[in-house]
Amino acid sequence: MARFEPLRLSELPDGVWRSRIIVRFGSCDPAGIVYTPEYLNLFNGVVEDWYGEALGISYHELVGKRRTGLGYAHVSADFATPSSMGDVLDVAVIVRRVGRASLTFTVHAFNGGVECVRSTFVTVTTSLVDHKAIALPNDVRSALNAYQSRCENAAVT
Amino acid sequence: MARFEPLRLSELPDGVWRSRIIVRFGSCDPAGIVYTPEYLNLFNGVVEDWYGEALGISYHELVGKRRTGLGYAHVSADFATPSSMGDVLDVAVIVRRVGRASLTFTVHAFNGGVECVRSTFVTVTTSLVDHKAIALPNDVRSALNAYQSRCENAAVT
Amino acid sequence: MARFEPLRLSELPDGVWRSRIIVRFGSCDPAGIVYTPEYLNLFNGVVEDWYGEALGISYHELVGKRRTGLGYAHVSADFATPSSMGDVLDVAVIVRRVGRASLTFTVHAFNGGVECVRSTFVTVTTSLVDHKAIALPNDVRSALNAYQSRCENAAVT
Amino acid sequence: MARFEPLRLSELPDGVWRSRIIVRFGSCDPAGIVYTPEYLNLFNGVVEDWYGEALGISYHELVGKRRTGLGYAHVSADFATPSSMGDVLDVAVIVRRVGRASLTFTVHAFNGGVECVRSTFVTVTTSLVDHKAIALPNDVRSALNAYQSRCENAAVT
Repeated sequence: MARFEPLRLSELPDGVWRSRIIVRFGSCDPAGIVYTPEYLNLFNGVVEDWYGEALGISYHELVGKRRTGLGYAHVSADFATPSSMGDVLDVAVIVRRVGRASLTFTVHAFNGGVECVRSTFVTVTTSLVDHKAIALPNDVRSALNAYQSRCENAAVT
Repeated sequence: MARFEPLRLSELPDGVWRSRIIVRFGSCDPAGIVYTPEYLNLFNGVVEDWYGEALGISYHELVGKRRTGLGYAHVSADFATPSSMGDVLDVAVIVRRVGRASLTFTVHAFNGGVECVRSTFVTVTTSLVDHKAIALPNDVRSALNAYQSRCENAAVT
Repeated sequence: MARFEPLRLSELPDGVWRSRIIVRFGSCDPAGIVYTPEYLNLFNGVVEDWYGEALGISYHELVGKRRTGLGYAHVSADFATPSSMGDVLDVAVIVRRVGRASLTFTVHAFNGGVECVRSTFVTVTTSLVDHKAIALPNDVRSALNAYQSRCENAAVT
Repeated sequence: MARFEPLRLSELPDGVWRSRIIVRFGSCDPAGIVYTPEYLNLFNGVVEDWYGEALGISYHELVGKRRTGLGYAHVSADFATPSSMGDVLDVAVIVRRVGRASLTFTVHAFNGGVECVRSTFVTVTTSLVDHKAIALPNDVRSALNAYQSRCENAAVT
């Protein structure tokens, strides 16, 4: 029933940054599984860590001190299998497209080594002073290009 | 920059059910606008009301007493303009496809009468007893068909 | 087991402003009842409406345009009975103390007319420009005093 | 203005379990600081880890498989200083009282080594089958007593 062909965590190229999420009680709904909107909240936290750890750029400084908005023009998620309280999800981020003032990346969550959720985000960079679109800052662009190179041989669709 | 052609609220056919959301302090992020994952949480609440008011079926009974899971196989949202604390959004629901065990609908949010967010949800009905897919319950299917007829002349894409 | 003597909704003086909350799927946890931190989020939304409807002051303008912080020095909640998805809670706000730069009020939630949660909030007014404490704005103070008078004969503890 | 005498992290006895929270974008409000109800959500996650790491009991098994409700009869929090996006908070848990069917503990958050939030939780154990109060399970009680002994010389009020 999945709308995507689930990857295996072991297939990911070494260059792909990854992290872990513990599924907490407070992230689950009365059906006992992760509440759908909460996945996007959890993934947004993962993306913050990815900026810092994989790109070497502080997400909080970028948004806070540098006043660069990283809002989304698009988010989506496809779900193959549900996850329950106490599950530990591996999560990986892959850059799909670096535009002039936008960035497309996918977040892949794995439960027991098999992809359970795939999410796509399109970030549009704006000035938080006047809320107008601005080009991706140069250091962000360079870091994204370097990250993409490291992931290059990614056998993912 | 929108990834969709924003509708005007006044263009919606009369048969389309609509509701209102007040953008609260707690729904906004440090950029002063609605936090992206929160849109999906707010829309999920709208969908609950839509079941009750437009379909005549209690969402809470369906999930609670009748143990019918209404989880999502897919969610997505496209954003044309941000909304801020205190904004009042009109929201409408349009049914796109009634499948055997799935339902596709779009949620449209309007700020000042112009569409600011468009979201697509694909619900897959499951039994909450064994978490297996089940056909849409007959009363839900009938109500969806009736709702679709009322919206029929919807000039929306 | 309650840590307070539950009030009945019918006992509240007419002057006490009240509102309603529908307990949504997304507000509930795997135990099928409202997730504790979510009560405080829901009550914060109620407080916003109370500012506008009972005090005649826009919460969003106060925080947004007027840059007056309404952060909390203290919050607490005591729980007598749990509430489930689909329950409709009546909620009332009572002012307890109007200080120079602080405000203490209680939020009372009723399920089936009997108090199920009682929450206390202490707001400290600050400037959102420099985050220093400031006196309660005069219009807020006047509105609070007027509201307290209307609730005066409140037979509540 | 604090309603408690802030501790220093360095004062905590060695036996007190501690963890860390990163303040994320999605946990902050338009004032740029942690949204008050979110503290309680974050602390609830900390408590889950505390069960597993300090008590040696899986919170998720306790609530999930063993169907033991760990709902709260009381929660409160006092705030000395606000925390912002990107801040890293140290968090510690201290047991205050082990009752027959209840548990009182405090959660202390430190920013830059100084206590910024102090929160008190009273857990009441229930059966999630019939929602009636039950005694603290024996293994939980033993683990709590052992934890208290390890923290015994805690110079905290």
